Amino acid sequence: MFRRKKFSPDWTEKAPSSGTMRSIVKYGNPNAFKHPSHGWVTMMMEEFGMSRGDFSRKIEEGNQKVELAKPVGLDARHIDRFRDIVGSDNVACDPYSRVKYSYGKTTEESMELRKGIVRDVTDVVVHPRDKQDVKSLVAYCNDNGIPMYVFAAGSSVNFGVRPAKGGVTLVLSTHMNKLLEINETNQTARVQPGMYGPAYENALNRAPELFGAKRRYTCGHFPQSFEYSTVGGWVVTLGSGQASTYYGDARDLVISQEYVTPTGTFRTREFPAAATGPKVNDIMKGSEGTFGILVEVTMKIYRFMPENRRYFSFIFPSWKAAVNASREIMQGEFGMPAIYRISDPEETDRGLKLYGMPSFLDRYLVRKGYRPMERCLCLGNIEGDGDYTKLVKKKIMKICKAHGAMYLTGYAGKKWEKTRYTEPYMREDLQDYGIQIDTLEASVTWDNLHKVHEGVRYFIKSRPGTMCMTHASHFYPQGTNLYFIFIMKTTNVEEFRSFQRGIIESMMKNGGSLSHHHGVGRMMAPYMDEYLGAEQMEVLRTIKRHFDPNGIMNPGGQLGLDLPEEERKHVL
Amino acid sequence: MFRRKKFSPDWTEKAPSSGTMRSIVKYGNPNAFKHPSHGWVTMMMEEFGMSRGDFSRKIEEGNQKVELAKPVGLDARHIDRFRDIVGSDNVACDPYSRVKYSYGKTTEESMELRKGIVRDVTDVVVHPRDKQDVKSLVAYCNDNGIPMYVFAAGSSVNFGVRPAKGGVTLVLSTHMNKLLEINETNQTARVQPGMYGPAYENALNRAPELFGAKRRYTCGHFPQSFEYSTVGGWVVTLGSGQASTYYGDARDLVISQEYVTPTGTFRTREFPAAATGPKVNDIMKGSEGTFGILVEVTMKIYRFMPENRRYFSFIFPSWKAAVNASREIMQGEFGMPAIYRISDPEETDRGLKLYGMPSFLDRYLVRKGYRPMERCLCLGNIEGDGDYTKLVKKKIMKICKAHGAMYLTGYAGKKWEKTRYTEPYMREDLQDYGIQIDTLEASVTWDNLHKVHEGVRYFIKSRPGTMCMTHASHFYPQGTNLYFIFIMKTTNVEEFRSFQRGIIESMMKNGGSLSHHHGVGRMMAPYMDEYLGAEQMEVLRTIKRHFDPNGIMNPGGQLGLDLPEEERKHVL
Repeated sequence: MFRRKKFSPDWTEKAPSSGTMRSIVKYGNPNAFKHPSHGWVTMMMEEFGMSRGDFSRKIEEGNQKVELAKPVGLDARHIDRFRDIVGSDNVACDPYSRVKYSYGKTTEESMELRKGIVRDVTDVVVHPRDKQDVKSLVAYCNDNGIPMYVFAAGSSVNFGVRPAKGGVTLVLSTHMNKLLEINETNQTARVQPGMYGPAYENALNRAPELFGAKRRYTCGHFPQSFEYSTVGGWVVTLGSGQASTYYGDARDLVISQEYVTPTGTFRTREFPAAATGPKVNDIMKGSEGTFGILVEVTMKIYRFMPENRRYFSFIFPSWKAAVNASREIMQGEFGMPAIYRISDPEETDRGLKLYGMPSFLDRYLVRKGYRPMERCLCLGNIEGDGDYTKLVKKKIMKICKAHGAMYLTGYAGKKWEKTRYTEPYMREDLQDYGIQIDTLEASVTWDNLHKVHEGVRYFIKSRPGTMCMTHASHFYPQGTNLYFIFIMKTTNVEEFRSFQRGIIESMMKNGGSLSHHHGVGRMMAPYMDEYLGAEQMEVLRTIKRHFDPNGIMNPGGQLGLDLPEEERKHVL
Repeated sequence: MFRRKKFSPDWTEKAPSSGTMRSIVKYGNPNAFKHPSHGWVTMMMEEFGMSRGDFSRKIEEGNQKVELAKPVGLDARHIDRFRDIVGSDNVACDPYSRVKYSYGKTTEESMELRKGIVRDVTDVVVHPRDKQDVKSLVAYCNDNGIPMYVFAAGSSVNFGVRPAKGGVTLVLSTHMNKLLEINETNQTARVQPGMYGPAYENALNRAPELFGAKRRYTCGHFPQSFEYSTVGGWVVTLGSGQASTYYGDARDLVISQEYVTPTGTFRTREFPAAATGPKVNDIMKGSEGTFGILVEVTMKIYRFMPENRRYFSFIFPSWKAAVNASREIMQGEFGMPAIYRISDPEETDRGLKLYGMPSFLDRYLVRKGYRPMERCLCLGNIEGDGDYTKLVKKKIMKICKAHGAMYLTGYAGKKWEKTRYTEPYMREDLQDYGIQIDTLEASVTWDNLHKVHEGVRYFIKSRPGTMCMTHASHFYPQGTNLYFIFIMKTTNVEEFRSFQRGIIESMMKNGGSLSHHHGVGRMMAPYMDEYLGAEQMEVLRTIKRHFDPNGIMNPGGQLGLDLPEEERKHVL
């Protein structure tokens, strides 16, 4: 036998040079890479009609040094005052820092930075050491009308950290990143907002060694951005972890919060429930830095029992069957799985190809009635007590089989789990060859799931040569989310932007929510007035004015709160 | 053998005469009674040193006709306008209606009404037919500065329906009491706010017959006041049902709400979760009529599977053992029981006596180490899928036994469930002989449970001849509630009031919440500023001013929002 050597583009294998645009664009660990597999490359070549030649010249790599024409727009006396408050080491005004801490991880931002286009940047970067620093900084900025932005891990995918009005950006992950206390009796953890996911989870897992606890704990919150997101970020943006079907979304994990706002500092009470009027603890969740700065949060924690986890994967004959089985599971009143995902036909088929399904298995599946572009993959796990995970798995098996699914062992679920945080690393490689991969997601009720799925897919697929892979990954008895991954070949930012906004509008027109767990930021902001309605927006604006009468907290469009009328969009 | 005939006081056995104070005071169905058992009477005689003679003369029965000196304080033109809006049949200004719809079910109110003391009353009672009526009424009252109060079932235990400023009381239970829609796919029900618990639950149970549904459903919310409370009342006061440990509190059951406020009408979106900023849906929960009027609510519903329920009861050697076992259960990650209750030693012993535990069983328990005034009763059930209820029961059995408990079969749980809604009926009988029975309750974290229990008990028991029975009945991994039942002999309202306020202050001083599920009303209102802190109260006041700039929605102290400084209490 003679095998042609598999083609592999010359992926970048070294960390971006310091001071470059690329070092800002790159996701995650500068020295970590996850290159698209051979299957991926083949798929790109087929879908986009690309040749090996197209994969030989990298474009817009962003290797140029960061340059910033815009001078610092704040008076030196303000910056001196910041130095007084936090110490000189914790204040930076150099161009690189100013750009780095002004950018999140939207595709649009990375496309522009690679071209050397820099938009709004902060004037000064400040790393507060503790909540007292934050208090002093907020008081000073409020007195002097200086805009304040918060940056923690910077994985925002909606321009949530964009300093639209300049001013100061506080970086909370530099110092305010500790697990302060584990309360084992109440099963809660008191955490600083800038603590990264892995450090938090690791500290909870090692509670006996670190805190003298009797048990090991888990935070229960594992978004794809887990490694490059923080506890505070999860809370203020209403994030969801991949195991949210069991543990709940970030909002469900919060017991109490402490905020510093221009109007004052407060900590909500630490009861698991109370009937003492509307809860300020709830009002602050999802406020995305517009009301004040989260400086401490008490979170629910859970017993860490990885030995009890049970994995599963299934192939369904159709999307409809997968959805129906999932609904039956979520409404079955026997407990919930932790991770639970169903992929639509396009995602399933691409996934099976990408992860190298042997052709004999494919033939077997087809013979059994699981046909390409119809069949749907389902995978997940169950966490908790060992007998509980056994029971829930048995129930899931039974329901899936009753809906025509074939059990594929726990292998796919385990394999998926291993790489679940590294997918974002592929973006750099693909962008090096002019390919954009991005995601948008919406909440759906069961009775409107198919309409949103079909409508948004129709819009995405109406652009020639555009891939669209969809899954549902956060489940409730009343509905789920739809997560659309779209892949297109373009380096034209304007074209990308307008297409991407079209997808948002399509989600909205078809009755999905503006976001299920990515938040609003400035990307969804123009739609907020129409989405929530004038009455509800005015409630949020009223609260905003109360906390921040001078409009210094994350100003310039965030949540749509201070967006001028002419920038609001009406699409329905 | 010669047995003395058991003494039984001459309990009232007929419905109150129409038009009397007693007809307003009496709880529940006018023709239904549940008299204290012989055990109860014996207990009262022992505890309060009462003789049979003391149980022969009824006092302050409230059989006098309602009289009202206070004339209607609203211009006739306003009342004419109300008649225009809702029709003449739906407007009442007679003294009886004005008193009836101005009163809730606090002990204080019943003590006063029995004496013929009438406090704040509404000027006119209006029964809106639908949400359009509510809208017209709110608009008119807002334009004319007429205070508005809402009455649904009137089971408030904190003066939540007290029309402190006169004006108009809307009765929502007269017409706006329908189940509008069951969405079987989403498992939600769209309900009018004035629907009573039993009508709602019955319609859900009979979904196949009434709505052509495939399955039967349950609402999952069963407060003690179930028969005389409404869906809207549950939501706006943040109530909890007896099965909340599994189904969640009222706040957890709400998917979306529609409100009419002076500032506008809106309906929140119907997604099970979304990351679109702070949720107005949450802000409205617990607003107790101060922001606007709830006119429609979409609630989660659950599969109704009574055939799968499993009951249990245990006796623990001590309160500490009962608490520790309960915590272990709630943190065990194997699913939650639905009803779950633990009684402290005083409640346990009185309960065992009252429900007639045979003396041989008592001797047996003592021999086994379950001693009076130490042992604690635990009872409950598990609901859901049959295999799930089996598993959870097995786990509970194991944990309870490991904490020294003896299993007492499911009998006590079933027996308790049968009479769980009728306990409030005893109040009238006891009051006829000058005995007051009342309750107060607080949320507690596990690590502060004993402090609150001991501190509040100490305060209650420091009054000579006062019974105090305590249980925990709503559980979370992070804590539970404490429900204090106190029984005292007095007809002196001032003495009662000051003692009862002392209990509230004791709960607060010991670190409990102001309320776990009874709400705030006007009773807890004076403590709200200190309890929440000035910063959080100001947030609520800001929202209040936004929705209700003219201060017409439930004015006069509700939630403490418009309480003058001099009426706010500082106890810490």
